[in-house]
Amino acid sequence: MSRQLEITIAGAGLAGSLLASLLADRGHRVRVFERRPDPRRSGFLGGRSINLALSARGLEALEAIGIRDEVMQNAIPMQGRIMHDANSQTSFHPYSANPDEAINSVSRGDLNIRLLDAAASRPNVSLHFQEPVVDVDFASGIAHVQHDHDEDLKHVKSDLIVGADGAYSAVRGAMQSAGGFGFRQQYISHGYKELVIPPQPDGGFALEKNALHIWPRGASMMIALPNADGSFTCTLFWPWEGPGTSFESLEDVEDLVGYFRGIYPDAVDLMPTLEEDYRENPIGHLVMISCERWTCGHSAVLLGDAAHAIVPFFGQGMNAAFQDCIVLDRHLEAADRDVRTAIAAFSAEQKPNGDAISQLSLENFLVMRDKVSSPWFRFRERLAKWLHLVLPRHVQPVYNLVSFSTTPYRDIVEKRARHRRAMQALVTAMLGLGALAIAFLVGTFV
Amino acid sequence: MSRQLEITIAGAGLAGSLLASLLADRGHRVRVFERRPDPRRSGFLGGRSINLALSARGLEALEAIGIRDEVMQNAIPMQGRIMHDANSQTSFHPYSANPDEAINSVSRGDLNIRLLDAAASRPNVSLHFQEPVVDVDFASGIAHVQHDHDEDLKHVKSDLIVGADGAYSAVRGAMQSAGGFGFRQQYISHGYKELVIPPQPDGGFALEKNALHIWPRGASMMIALPNADGSFTCTLFWPWEGPGTSFESLEDVEDLVGYFRGIYPDAVDLMPTLEEDYRENPIGHLVMISCERWTCGHSAVLLGDAAHAIVPFFGQGMNAAFQDCIVLDRHLEAADRDVRTAIAAFSAEQKPNGDAISQLSLENFLVMRDKVSSPWFRFRERLAKWLHLVLPRHVQPVYNLVSFSTTPYRDIVEKRARHRRAMQALVTAMLGLGALAIAFLVGTFV
Repeated sequence: MSRQLEITIAGAGLAGSLLASLLADRGHRVRVFERRPDPRRSGFLGGRSINLALSARGLEALEAIGIRDEVMQNAIPMQGRIMHDANSQTSFHPYSANPDEAINSVSRGDLNIRLLDAAASRPNVSLHFQEPVVDVDFASGIAHVQHDHDEDLKHVKSDLIVGADGAYSAVRGAMQSAGGFGFRQQYISHGYKELVIPPQPDGGFALEKNALHIWPRGASMMIALPNADGSFTCTLFWPWEGPGTSFESLEDVEDLVGYFRGIYPDAVDLMPTLEEDYRENPIGHLVMISCERWTCGHSAVLLGDAAHAIVPFFGQGMNAAFQDCIVLDRHLEAADRDVRTAIAAFSAEQKPNGDAISQLSLENFLVMRDKVSSPWFRFRERLAKWLHLVLPRHVQPVYNLVSFSTTPYRDIVEKRARHRRAMQALVTAMLGLGALAIAFLVGTFV
Repeated sequence: MSRQLEITIAGAGLAGSLLASLLADRGHRVRVFERRPDPRRSGFLGGRSINLALSARGLEALEAIGIRDEVMQNAIPMQGRIMHDANSQTSFHPYSANPDEAINSVSRGDLNIRLLDAAASRPNVSLHFQEPVVDVDFASGIAHVQHDHDEDLKHVKSDLIVGADGAYSAVRGAMQSAGGFGFRQQYISHGYKELVIPPQPDGGFALEKNALHIWPRGASMMIALPNADGSFTCTLFWPWEGPGTSFESLEDVEDLVGYFRGIYPDAVDLMPTLEEDYRENPIGHLVMISCERWTCGHSAVLLGDAAHAIVPFFGQGMNAAFQDCIVLDRHLEAADRDVRTAIAAFSAEQKPNGDAISQLSLENFLVMRDKVSSPWFRFRERLAKWLHLVLPRHVQPVYNLVSFSTTPYRDIVEKRARHRRAMQALVTAMLGLGALAIAFLVGTFV
């Protein structure tokens, strides 16, 4: 029988708690340390999280720990985008030619609690709240854990330390200080703010339930995702500053509701607490993290946001983090639980996938806020979907591969590059033939 | 009279202590907080610093606080490079056609002590050792300072906070956590290790005194700079790993001296403590830091290594940091001591200069370790120097502009780009004329 590893996970968020269950099911002893209080007791703190869109990669991981069906019972499938234009006209654009393929709106707080319950139900998992990993000694494999409000540190030695502690990861901070760790954090010029569309007086949804709603406005946009209680969580993605719609230009506006009415005329009347929500909710930064490699020393590894925080425009942050968990678990088994070999192979495989989904997510911002309102873009999207129906194995739109398959992100980007080169060659050939045909005709008739 | 500012400087290294004197001379009240003990009492800790090459920018700053002559009395001018090839042959390559233009080898420890003495002699400067700035609250302009070994923090409020606390700056760390601060740290694939060539038995220099010695070997190199006591500090710049010369490949070598003799045959016999030094001295990382901007909030700013740590191959780290100090001081005066305006203008001006010297320094690694041994490169260098003598205003080699002028680094990079485009156009024109001439001759004689 393979040896049992002592594993320390920093962070009991989505990735950390899922990974704890996965590794516990292999027989390892897992300790999870989390900075925040237990959300199962204190309630989940909202207002800072963009709604989650659960898709194929996430579902595969939930299936692996046996809670897929339970989570899906509370999810709301979104079969496509509903676009709201400046004249309050709406149009529906399905994500897939196959109506069974949908992304699923889930509540971050609810999902996190289910993941924690799953981890806590495994006898070989222990969860420690308000005890963050604050530093790591990579040479000795010791994590330094702080007790709540206590200055003394607990020293936890283990065979494997996993930094699943998010975009501002303390484990990564320790790697950055250790020397030789290439790292980048970038911010886009847009911030985000959450607003709300409450349920109708009769409890029903104020907008079509099974869709992701978008108000694309060129440089900025608003989106809305359905919640199980009949409300929608709206998110503004606006530039921090600039002369057009921006958080800065709203600062001097007296009539906030009037300003919104000019941009989102069909949404304003559905938002009775708009002014209050706008004033009270913070503006969040959108950060992208990139690390040259995801390991430090021979027993510490990063995954999820800690390794590759991405912008939220493809709804893939959680899905990518869950896929990291599945791949790390697979490498540990493949290397017969040799941690050094497993984490090196994991980093080599997943780092290019992290880069790829980071790039795709940033590109999708352009699609959502601008291109979806272009007839030419929509024609090409329809064409791709139709070709996919006719030649399902040869034409697979990028959106489908990202959301409805578990194909590694890097393969999708490479496939797209090959596809684009082939299309260019085809167009060039067609134009050449066309020119020849015209020359022939001209030659015949003149 | 202009108002007196309360200024907090994090770091009493080269840049921090120079800046303290500059700002004190304007009448401001300056407090400097440093993590390490006072080197004037405890002795300077060596073994981790590459020798310093003081050139025009550094000299301008020392002049401004009145210690240029004092520092230069202990400096050793280096008029050029002496190259040592694999057959122990040497050749001298002057830095400038003007023999008065030299870079100056100075001891980091000695210079830092003189800078601290200068700062301490100003009544409106206070120096605090073993009291590092560990965090900053940018909204309130408060620096959190830790007393040595004491967990309580001192809260220091001031009008301006300057992070001059080096490549692993705590002030920058606080900016990174504050959100919206784009940042990158990169490491090159080479590390460095210091060795020593002691003075001759008679106290004389074992190699030519007034030169920077280089042993270029393609992918790696060793350099040596003279010290006032007759010794040379040697620095290896080797790849961390790889099949050729690398720190990794030396790990398994039994005969260390023999290994060195194969690479640096004329140096080994001058290094009696080679084996001991190699085993005891650490291998340092070479980090490059780049920040999207050098400010955070309205009263905190970075400069020197904290803002733009660079690789040491142009000998410009200290010189660039000193120029930052001069430029920051100038902007504070130009903005009539309005800190917010001054630091925004400083960041806008100096950030592109930081990027430019970072790029030039990385390029110079290639020059030093490889190109200096190419006859074609040396021919072009000689040609450029000769053209500079003939047309001093029109042709200025990049090396001269960087080391013997205070021209902003960005202007040098832009000038070089224009120059290269002009040279390409000239070469193209010459080739065209040549081809015409040949065609004409062929036409005449055939």
